[in-house]
Amino acid sequence: MHAMRPILYIIASLMLAPPVLAQEIRDVPVRQLPLPQAASPELRALIQTGSMATWNDHPATADDWKSWIAQGAEKASAVLPALREKMGVTVEASKIAGVNVFTIVPKDVSPENRDRVLIHFHGGGYVLNPGEAGTGEAIMMAGLGHVRVISVDYRMPPDFPYPAAMDDAFAVYKGVLATNDASRIGVFGTSTGGAMTLALVLRAKAEGLPLPGAIAAGTPWADLEKIGDSYFSNDSVDNVLVRYEGWLGDAAKLYAGGHYMKDPYLSPIYGDYRGFPPTILVTGTRDLFLSNTVRVHRKLRESGAVADLVVFEGLSHAQYLFSPDMHEAKEYFRELEGFFNAHLKR
Amino acid sequence: MHAMRPILYIIASLMLAPPVLAQEIRDVPVRQLPLPQAASPELRALIQTGSMATWNDHPATADDWKSWIAQGAEKASAVLPALREKMGVTVEASKIAGVNVFTIVPKDVSPENRDRVLIHFHGGGYVLNPGEAGTGEAIMMAGLGHVRVISVDYRMPPDFPYPAAMDDAFAVYKGVLATNDASRIGVFGTSTGGAMTLALVLRAKAEGLPLPGAIAAGTPWADLEKIGDSYFSNDSVDNVLVRYEGWLGDAAKLYAGGHYMKDPYLSPIYGDYRGFPPTILVTGTRDLFLSNTVRVHRKLRESGAVADLVVFEGLSHAQYLFSPDMHEAKEYFRELEGFFNAHLKR
Repeated sequence: MHAMRPILYIIASLMLAPPVLAQEIRDVPVRQLPLPQAASPELRALIQTGSMATWNDHPATADDWKSWIAQGAEKASAVLPALREKMGVTVEASKIAGVNVFTIVPKDVSPENRDRVLIHFHGGGYVLNPGEAGTGEAIMMAGLGHVRVISVDYRMPPDFPYPAAMDDAFAVYKGVLATNDASRIGVFGTSTGGAMTLALVLRAKAEGLPLPGAIAAGTPWADLEKIGDSYFSNDSVDNVLVRYEGWLGDAAKLYAGGHYMKDPYLSPIYGDYRGFPPTILVTGTRDLFLSNTVRVHRKLRESGAVADLVVFEGLSHAQYLFSPDMHEAKEYFRELEGFFNAHLKR
Repeated sequence: MHAMRPILYIIASLMLAPPVLAQEIRDVPVRQLPLPQAASPELRALIQTGSMATWNDHPATADDWKSWIAQGAEKASAVLPALREKMGVTVEASKIAGVNVFTIVPKDVSPENRDRVLIHFHGGGYVLNPGEAGTGEAIMMAGLGHVRVISVDYRMPPDFPYPAAMDDAFAVYKGVLATNDASRIGVFGTSTGGAMTLALVLRAKAEGLPLPGAIAAGTPWADLEKIGDSYFSNDSVDNVLVRYEGWLGDAAKLYAGGHYMKDPYLSPIYGDYRGFPPTILVTGTRDLFLSNTVRVHRKLRESGAVADLVVFEGLSHAQYLFSPDMHEAKEYFRELEGFFNAHLKR
């Protein structure tokens, strides 16, 4: 072996790039994934529709982003009248601390939820779902969980990069705190909304505010950079986000606007989780954010927090929000309802 | 569209097999997985060693199996003297109800564990780890958790296919019940041992015995057949089992010995989880058994049981057992210790 070293050294030094050890990279061959037999029929039907049509769009200018976002919002809003009716909720637009919000009230607030309120941050990569387009998850939570929800229409790029969204989130939290006991406030959201939920608690801790009684982070965008194993292992397995190299990575850059992406208010995985309130996290086996979710769960449990983890079989990113009739959607909202009911003060 | 139907029908009827809709299969291209940055340095070092050398062995005859099993047992046993010393435990071989067991006692049983005992079923696909080779996990649990452990050396193929292993497991449980309160008994195991833990509770329920106070199923082999999405999505991503088509699928057939593989005592995912004791489940994002684990977790929670789920970043099948110095190993045993402490009667 020793005799070979000089030869290897010479070969290596002739190469333009430093040699990569084969063991540092694991080669995974082409594969064909059948429909997940053990997922619900509704989820299997959704998977059969293929990848999201827009996953690999790359708007180039601010105007391109705006028209792309407007197209998405139109689609998302089209289903809302029927959803509101099905869920039996009323939605009212107003402002809290100068931030646009939607207050969603179900026709039957349950007795244990009479003095409770949930704050909701919508998902969409910090770019999608402005206005009422972002209220779908909040409407389902209010209707299925029989609880009042305030959904925050936070400012977004291209006009308002970081820290506008977090400033709005924090302002609404402080506003709600003024008239509600923190122990009766729950905070939740999916994807970007899950990350904002975590970042809000980090900021409330840092600024010495009382923390919410419980929180739920659905498949949170905990790391804005492509760090986390499932960005690679579930690349092209997930049929919603599909790959980091789709619109998602562009949105990360647009939102961060040059800020350090490992700042915990942008990538909450890098925060200090000591003293966190009870937290439930939800993801799926095909989720590009599987690692984002389980990394936060580990940090929480290693910090001593009560932290529950739910992983749905065969589910891609945030797919539990795609239809209230899907078994996994019912289970998502049932898990959140049970968790908030167990941990929020009555 | 309607005009095309007859033509499609004719083409379809000319084919030998029914036509497969393209959407039913998801194509995943070749990928290269870098080392998971957010896994511990110890786990990353382990992943760098590549796939288990034996994953694609296919012993053909009973004698081939026996010599293959003996080689594995020799390797597994070689590390045990140092492990026993490091963990500060004594190990004594005896019999309970005619079944070979090892009783493992740490030098410092904690006060809260004085009247508690854990029963352990080792892993190894129902074929590997006979005799003391199967005691590694039990030794680490006893030493790190400061608790007495009885590790069951159940009978295995090729000489003893199903139901020998489950009969032995059940006999030991009944034997331990004779001198211990069920609420002070915990049961745990990894892989095959996790599945046997679940199947034992199913059988105790069916036969009207008191159930253990809490159980832990590490990455349980809940479905002996290749059903479950991660058998496909983590195919060749997992570097321990690697693929169902390695020795694993052969072991399933050898163990089942012609029995119906969906029998809940062989594939506990098909059991009735109502009334289960508190259960903790553990897996990793690269685990071939990720779906086996999360499917059981969902069934438990949908049945109303207390069920915790832990998913380690970048971890393949059962890798938390590979070294007691690995961060994920320490966390695995800390999670189990905390769970048993919270749920077993003192």
